[in-house]
Amino acid sequence: MALTRILEPGDERAGRWLRETGPVELVRRLTTADGSAEQLPGMTAVRLGGYRLRAAAAAEPERDLAAVAAVGGRFVCPGDREWPTQLDDLGDARPIGLWVRGRSDLRLWALRSVAVVGARACTPYGAHMAAHLGSGLAERGWVVVSGAAFGVDGSAHRGALAVGGATMAVLACGVDVTYPRGHAELIGRMAEQGLIMSELPPGDHPTRSRFILRNRVIAALTRGTVVVEAEYRSGSLVTARSAQRLGRFTIGVPGPATSGLSAGVHELLRGEGVLVTDASEVAELVGDIGDLAPARRGPVLPRDLLDAVTARVLEALPYRGAVDGREVARTAGITADEALGRLYELHSLGFVEREGDGWRLTPRPTCNGDARRGGT
Amino acid sequence: MALTRILEPGDERAGRWLRETGPVELVRRLTTADGSAEQLPGMTAVRLGGYRLRAAAAAEPERDLAAVAAVGGRFVCPGDREWPTQLDDLGDARPIGLWVRGRSDLRLWALRSVAVVGARACTPYGAHMAAHLGSGLAERGWVVVSGAAFGVDGSAHRGALAVGGATMAVLACGVDVTYPRGHAELIGRMAEQGLIMSELPPGDHPTRSRFILRNRVIAALTRGTVVVEAEYRSGSLVTARSAQRLGRFTIGVPGPATSGLSAGVHELLRGEGVLVTDASEVAELVGDIGDLAPARRGPVLPRDLLDAVTARVLEALPYRGAVDGREVARTAGITADEALGRLYELHSLGFVEREGDGWRLTPRPTCNGDARRGGT
Repeated sequence: MALTRILEPGDERAGRWLRETGPVELVRRLTTADGSAEQLPGMTAVRLGGYRLRAAAAAEPERDLAAVAAVGGRFVCPGDREWPTQLDDLGDARPIGLWVRGRSDLRLWALRSVAVVGARACTPYGAHMAAHLGSGLAERGWVVVSGAAFGVDGSAHRGALAVGGATMAVLACGVDVTYPRGHAELIGRMAEQGLIMSELPPGDHPTRSRFILRNRVIAALTRGTVVVEAEYRSGSLVTARSAQRLGRFTIGVPGPATSGLSAGVHELLRGEGVLVTDASEVAELVGDIGDLAPARRGPVLPRDLLDAVTARVLEALPYRGAVDGREVARTAGITADEALGRLYELHSLGFVEREGDGWRLTPRPTCNGDARRGGT
Repeated sequence: MALTRILEPGDERAGRWLRETGPVELVRRLTTADGSAEQLPGMTAVRLGGYRLRAAAAAEPERDLAAVAAVGGRFVCPGDREWPTQLDDLGDARPIGLWVRGRSDLRLWALRSVAVVGARACTPYGAHMAAHLGSGLAERGWVVVSGAAFGVDGSAHRGALAVGGATMAVLACGVDVTYPRGHAELIGRMAEQGLIMSELPPGDHPTRSRFILRNRVIAALTRGTVVVEAEYRSGSLVTARSAQRLGRFTIGVPGPATSGLSAGVHELLRGEGVLVTDASEVAELVGDIGDLAPARRGPVLPRDLLDAVTARVLEALPYRGAVDGREVARTAGITADEALGRLYELHSLGFVEREGDGWRLTPRPTCNGDARRGGT
């Protein structure tokens, strides 16, 4: 927690120190007078001074934790059960940890997630496509990830929320900071019904480089990044290229060849990007990664290891047929928002799936026995 | 010539007979009483009867030739100097021959040609893109090939004509038949300034299957096929898939994902198709085929073998700098249309190239000597 205040996101040199010395020792060296430059390879006294200044201001990680806890948040870092291990693919640029708000389990949601990103100043066509993809992916049980910005990002989040779907935002500011201001309600709704997260400690504000570095987290967290409208050299293309480097799917929505806002997407599609025109094509594509797709191979957790509330949600589903999320909530005796979060977790684990507006138990091939009822 | 009246385009069985027996013997067997079914493998008496009926009506190929000659046309078939040998890639579905109208050399024009095809009932966006590609390709010295239909085809032809470029149409009816009626002026202009051609003998009218079979000729003749707007299961996709099977480039112009008229193109682009947004991207792509690109390796014909008029056109170009096509015509003492045709032929042969609105001699690397001045 202290390191998220001392280090900027994506600082690979600091990531190497962290890997080599461990967090406790790194904080000690950065905050005490005897942490000499020699002990941190590649570090000059001048640069160390910069870290020291920020370290002095980070004397009280307890205060940061309290500030985030006050808005219902928590801190998740490598080694925690909730840590999304796919972020480790970022190597030394891996986030030190994530400040998270929202009820659901970040690791489980991230397992079946897709990013939908694009221009802030999108056209009505771009906004329509983003909302349509957000809804369609959520209806297919995918968690929609974006950056909570105006334009494509916001439309994608709203599209998912509109169908009672799961969506999460990776912010370039503290999770207690409302940016952009105009998205206060949307961000609040996501903190309630979805997840919002950030590498930055509470109170921190976005900068240009933080926006760009935030994109690598979106790319690494998800199975694929769909770009809906982007100009040449836009931030969304940075996300898409990160996704490509990380071996995730890079996906683009075509537009008129005459539209400058589609030029960046078309550039992508002339390279490695895959063209899609609707959510089913995205789902078909990202659903193909066998090694990340527990739903295709059966539950990754035995039913006995589910926590009590999640187990109750699972019990609330009938043996046959689909039911509405609100009915599940009533039967399980929890709120609709909480039920929704648990249902998406169970979906990531392969226990349940969406059917139209409702949810049902995942049918299992009989040759594997009745995996739903326990087993390994 | 007689066989173009007896056989329908793309009849592979007849193509095999033709390959095995030669045209003279095949006509004899199909038109005389002693041509028994046994002599033509795979032929039943009933089917042979069908060929016989048409053969009876084709007694006078001289009359067909006279009819086409009356509108300034000729017949070109395999073995002729003007035969575009890339059509041989069609195997037994190769056209028996082509009835051609227009001044220019079909073989030379086809060497540097690209097809631009698409929906008849295109949107204004589709028409704009087709015209834009037609102009841009013509400006880069490419011959624009299409089917003279309403919509995308017509816009592509007109785009090429608008910049004084070369364009040719492959028709699904006789070259003396004006179809569609509304394109009478356009087809007339192409017969004057460009080329029009057909597998069908004079007077023949288009049918649904002739439209579809015509597409394989467009695909085989050109280095690549660009599809601008096409619905699912459209004829343009047939052309594109033929192009793919023949090892030509299959190219598509994206449109809004919400447009049914772009759905077929997007399907193509999700497969083997390459996305392009302007003529320079098309030219870059199709210009890469080394084995079909004489312009990149120097002239394919020695200057001494050029016919007298073409040689005069070449003489009319200054040693340095570019001149207007009309000035070339004046210097060579021929009409502007004729000069244009010769310039495109010389372009295919690698002697000249376009520069803006004008033409200039192709610069040669000095290490190869002055290839323009003769040589081998």
